Amino acid sequence: MSNLPLRPGLAGDTPYGAPEMDVPARLNVNENPYPPSPAVIDDIADAVRAAATRLNRYPDREFPALRQALADYLAVESGVRVPWQQIWAANGSNEVMLHVLQAFGGPGRVCLSFTPTYSMYPEYARDTLTEYVTLARRQDFTLDVEAVRAAIVAHHPAVVILASPNNPTGTALPLEDVRAILDAARGAGPFDEDGAPTDAVVVVDEAYGEFRRPGVPSALELLADYEHLAVSRTMSKAFGMAGLRLGYLAATRALVDALRVVRLPYHLSAISQAAALAALAHREELMSQVASLRDERDATVAWLRAQGHMAFESDANFVLFGPFEDRQAVFEGLLERGVLIRVVGPDGYLRVCMGTPSQMEAFRTALTAVTRP
Amino acid sequence: MSNLPLRPGLAGDTPYGAPEMDVPARLNVNENPYPPSPAVIDDIADAVRAAATRLNRYPDREFPALRQALADYLAVESGVRVPWQQIWAANGSNEVMLHVLQAFGGPGRVCLSFTPTYSMYPEYARDTLTEYVTLARRQDFTLDVEAVRAAIVAHHPAVVILASPNNPTGTALPLEDVRAILDAARGAGPFDEDGAPTDAVVVVDEAYGEFRRPGVPSALELLADYEHLAVSRTMSKAFGMAGLRLGYLAATRALVDALRVVRLPYHLSAISQAAALAALAHREELMSQVASLRDERDATVAWLRAQGHMAFESDANFVLFGPFEDRQAVFEGLLERGVLIRVVGPDGYLRVCMGTPSQMEAFRTALTAVTRP
Repeated sequence: MSNLPLRPGLAGDTPYGAPEMDVPARLNVNENPYPPSPAVIDDIADAVRAAATRLNRYPDREFPALRQALADYLAVESGVRVPWQQIWAANGSNEVMLHVLQAFGGPGRVCLSFTPTYSMYPEYARDTLTEYVTLARRQDFTLDVEAVRAAIVAHHPAVVILASPNNPTGTALPLEDVRAILDAARGAGPFDEDGAPTDAVVVVDEAYGEFRRPGVPSALELLADYEHLAVSRTMSKAFGMAGLRLGYLAATRALVDALRVVRLPYHLSAISQAAALAALAHREELMSQVASLRDERDATVAWLRAQGHMAFESDANFVLFGPFEDRQAVFEGLLERGVLIRVVGPDGYLRVCMGTPSQMEAFRTALTAVTRP
Repeated sequence: MSNLPLRPGLAGDTPYGAPEMDVPARLNVNENPYPPSPAVIDDIADAVRAAATRLNRYPDREFPALRQALADYLAVESGVRVPWQQIWAANGSNEVMLHVLQAFGGPGRVCLSFTPTYSMYPEYARDTLTEYVTLARRQDFTLDVEAVRAAIVAHHPAVVILASPNNPTGTALPLEDVRAILDAARGAGPFDEDGAPTDAVVVVDEAYGEFRRPGVPSALELLADYEHLAVSRTMSKAFGMAGLRLGYLAATRALVDALRVVRLPYHLSAISQAAALAALAHREELMSQVASLRDERDATVAWLRAQGHMAFESDANFVLFGPFEDRQAVFEGLLERGVLIRVVGPDGYLRVCMGTPSQMEAFRTALTAVTRP
């Protein structure tokens, strides 16, 4: 037993993370199954080689070139253009969200979210001493906007997190719901040091935004109307760059400037900046798999339903399905057959993310074998 | 004016960082002036190319290969060998220190350090809601161990930070002082949830450890004796890899395991891991400039004294000198002549870090011109 002064609240906690296993079908952490092409790899290696010539120097703390490239990408992807000063980026959207909670959360403050949802949100809250309060989604995983409004009035949250599409359910929020929640958040945040009400920060986590179905809008479209809105994205999912650790958000300049105060200086390395810039130059190619992954998802939902399972409509690259009396047994049966999925979400349910066609074939075969012995 | 709920304590704060300017002699942030060789650059680019082939996948959360390489390096550098599980690493020692304060600091807890010292320490404390308490060093910047012991007893700090060599003064601590402080810290930390005393964590920040003079030992030698000791290092300084953002520490496994709980999952990208491993394979070459930088430092101290300035003995790659009635004017006069140094430390003093011989010649010429008009 060590006698170290571990902070109260951490005792018994274990490091967060899904199992890391090398199996033929790794469908558990919502990665993109397609590795970068030789052309992308070449450009990343060349960009890093160029950056390496001055690795003895600290990187640019403000990285305007990368922020501009991310703004350009968002303009193409969503039709919404913002100047680079309204973009923030860090080592994964994990770190972006930590910056948000460091700037706006803290002791005596509340972060409000809506379960079932992404299991890292309570960790960001724990790490910043912010109280994490949840409200359940409806049975179909949409939000009851009136209940959300009441929860905001009751808790005066500093930060409200709306995952859309939501993980692990795949549910996208209608823009009118996001708008109603933004309106409710106005003046409903904690009181400031002068006793005046603030606007609760609303983060729409669009980590899976690029997989949304045609016609489903991005919350980026609301940026011009709300000073307390932030929309977070990542290069880990649709973009196929999970290993790069590059998350980002778009918001007003005032909000981004608050994040700049709490970021550690030089948090993004020179090689991360160079590699991300090189990858973004290939955005068409890297995004080209998104359409086929969307098709795979819709086909998976249809197939699961045809097998008699419940499967939820999804705007992401994964599908929540079930219910199983013993979901752990189903998970293990699949794993024995080389298919790794995730035990997450409401009791009895499992989440599978979209792989290549042959990985999905392996998933279907394994699930059939496991559930119809 | 925005109406965002900025956390109390952040109002008016600005993003930390020294000016980033492209001048002929950039001697302000204690970088290594020597860029990596073509062989090092090639190997980094090749390693990143190989890692890029699977960038669609998340990186290894535990990175044992990199931790082993860092342990091997420490064994060569200091003669102290630890298993890889006793090494922790993150995006710069900034993030390593944040992990330490996240795990052991927090509201109602104290972080104790000794001024003048590194200006990021209060930021780590601020970001983790830890109270930052300081005790002044002696006039020669050594520690009065009895006063340190009294401060530990008075404040029950969760974390004590000893920079050695200290920034911005260059002062290394004798090992007997570190040992005495470790003894004082035993049972003098905050009470745990059961009301029992804990051992305050003592972090010896050896960011500049490789520049220490011959015969000056590393606190790594005390690791086997103290469960509450952590020794932090970085690849940014002697190793010449500031752009890579790779800081690390060695400690007991219990201490490292506490950091693993608060780290964000996948905090070190696959390309950071690959590039750091490639760089570590060239450790002899990358470290080869350390001896000449040490010589440059000792010559700079001698030259400054010969000019009638006060210059402090240094075990780092920088020298604190002065005093000047108007240090800002001296700083600006040097900058006009293409020499960027740092206004930091006690009133009237300036810090210059060691550059190439020609950059140091430029520094001497400029300082002579500015101070003897």
